[in-house]
This record gives sequence, C-alpha cells and structure tokens, in this order.
Amino acid sequence: MRVLGVDPGLTRCGLAIVDELPGRKVSLKTVMVFRTDATSDLSQRLLELDDALAKVIKEFKPDSVAVEQVFSQHNLKSVMGTAQAAGLAILNAAKANCEVFIYTPTQVKASVTGSGKADKRQMGRMIQKICNLASPLSPPDASDAVALAVCHLWRNSTVEKIKKRKVS
Amino acid sequence: MRVLGVDPGLTRCGLAIVDELPGRKVSLKTVMVFRTDATSDLSQRLLELDDALAKVIKEFKPDSVAVEQVFSQHNLKSVMGTAQAAGLAILNAAKANCEVFIYTPTQVKASVTGSGKADKRQMGRMIQKICNLASPLSPPDASDAVALAVCHLWRNSTVEKIKKRKVS
Repeated sequence: MRVLGVDPGLTRCGLAIVDELPGRKVSLKTVMVFRTDATSDLSQRLLELDDALAKVIKEFKPDSVAVEQVFSQHNLKSVMGTAQAAGLAILNAAKANCEVFIYTPTQVKASVTGSGKADKRQMGRMIQKICNLASPLSPPDASDAVALAVCHLWRNSTVEKIKKRKVS
Repeated sequence: MRVLGVDPGLTRCGLAIVDELPGRKVSLKTVMVFRTDATSDLSQRLLELDDALAKVIKEFKPDSVAVEQVFSQHNLKSVMGTAQAAGLAILNAAKANCEVFIYTPTQVKASVTGSGKADKRQMGRMIQKICNLASPLSPPDASDAVALAVCHLWRNSTVEKIKKRKVS
C-alpha cells in the first residue's frame, strides 16, 4: 500500500509519498513542499498546484490519497486557498482512480502520537522517529503531509485487524 | 466579447454564456445549473463539476470568465464546497487561457441594478429585462450566473469609455 499524504495549501502544500512495510513500519519515498507565489494571480497558482499534484500522482502511483480536513472557522484569511488546494488534491486523486480519505488534525495526531492534543513539535519528532530521519522535517507542512499518510496506513491496518478478528 | 459567468457551488453551480452587443446590450447564449448529488463522494462531485466546466468552456470558447467571490463568513456549512467549485472554475478558465475576474455580490448587484443592496427578486427581474426573457430565470443560481457575466461586460465597457475619454 502506497499513500500520498497532502497537507493542503496554496502558498505551501505538503506532499508525501509513504509505503507501508510489515510490522507497523513505513518507508518515506519522497516528501516536498510545493509553493506558489502569493503575489501571482489565483488562476496561475491553481494551475501550478494542479500540475504539481498531477505529476506526483503520475510518477509515484499511490493507491490512496489522504488529505487534511479544512475547517472554515480557522485561518479565515487563508481558508479559501486551503479549501481550493484540497479540492485540487481530491480532484487529481479521483482522476487517477485513487481512493480519497479526509482526516481531521485530531485524527492524525491521535494516530501518530496516541494523543489528539499533540503539538507541532511532538508531531515533528514522532514523524522523525517513525521515518528514521536524522532530524525533524521542515517546514511543518512537510511533516504534516507524512503524518497524514502514516495516519491513513495505521488507521486502516487497525481496521483490517479488527475485521480479521471478527471473522476468525 | 463572450463571457462565462459562474455562480459557484457544488450542489448547484450556475453557468451562463453571455455575448456583448453594441449599445450596452447583451445576448444570452445559454444558461444552466449544473448539479451534483449531495450524497455522492466529494471526489465524484468534484470530478463531475470539473468535467462540466471543461465542456462548457470547450464548446462556447468564452474570452473571459467571471466568478463570484466566496466569503468565508457566509454559509459556513457549504463554504468549503463553494470555494472548491470556484477553484475548479478558475482552474478550467486558466487551462483554456481565459482571463478570470472575481466579483463580489455587491459589485454584481451595483453593476446590474445600480444598487449594491438589490435583493434576489430585483436582481432576477433586472436580468429578465436585460436578457429580454418572458419570465425570471429559476433557480436564482441561473440568474446569478447571468448577472456575473453582465457585470463583467458592463464594468469593463465603462472602464473602456473612461479610458477613451482620458485619451481624447
């Protein structure tokens, strides 16, 4: 199972490709923060992000795409761009026949650290440990994209286990 | 000059093609309300709307696309879908090399009726009159899409006149 994690944003969009390994382990294939110029036209920014998303999906062929839920009550100034970036991620996933899963920040934190209230630093350190990296990923958008992919893998492997238990 | 007016929405997206005629007149070429099923997956809905937008732009080849500004403080429940629908309209316009213009509801009302405070019914009647229709368009999303296109044509023809006056 290969997952593309997307921390949506127009100015910075975190994108991470993570493979599932046996024994609740993961392999981080690539991680990037795709940026568009905040002074450019919105149409140009959407075009560039759409292109970047299409390319990463074409190159890495994820099975699923995990996108962070956007809430309208947070960051009123940037929420429109964030919603549009999330929309493009979901659209590109759908065009490539990838299943799309939306997770709230609390779900991601709980899956990765065991606590839905973990802060950015705790999340960064946990992702560093899980991916066996020398230092935490920077900026946080990169780490958050990996966390989304890991959240999807781990939540679903738990669901699978529960299903198997019920069957046996 | 041919304009595609877009009243963005995921459940109902108003789309209108309007041509400019001499003497502050317009010709309504087509108007439709594209709907997606609110019980479908978001990925399916975005895919369907993206396809509809691409088709209308390919068929009618507008010079410009006028999209209503989405505000985060209104309709919290539907604002994410509305923002994503607007994003797809802007993306499809950019892909077809159409210029994109964003107008606030107040700008549209002021251009069409002369008052930024006009209500839905006044707007509907004014669009009916401008387009020489037997009755007001229904649902309001259809009328609003026409109003966006008319707003773009009239604002820009006024700007052109002012420019010409300054030059002469």
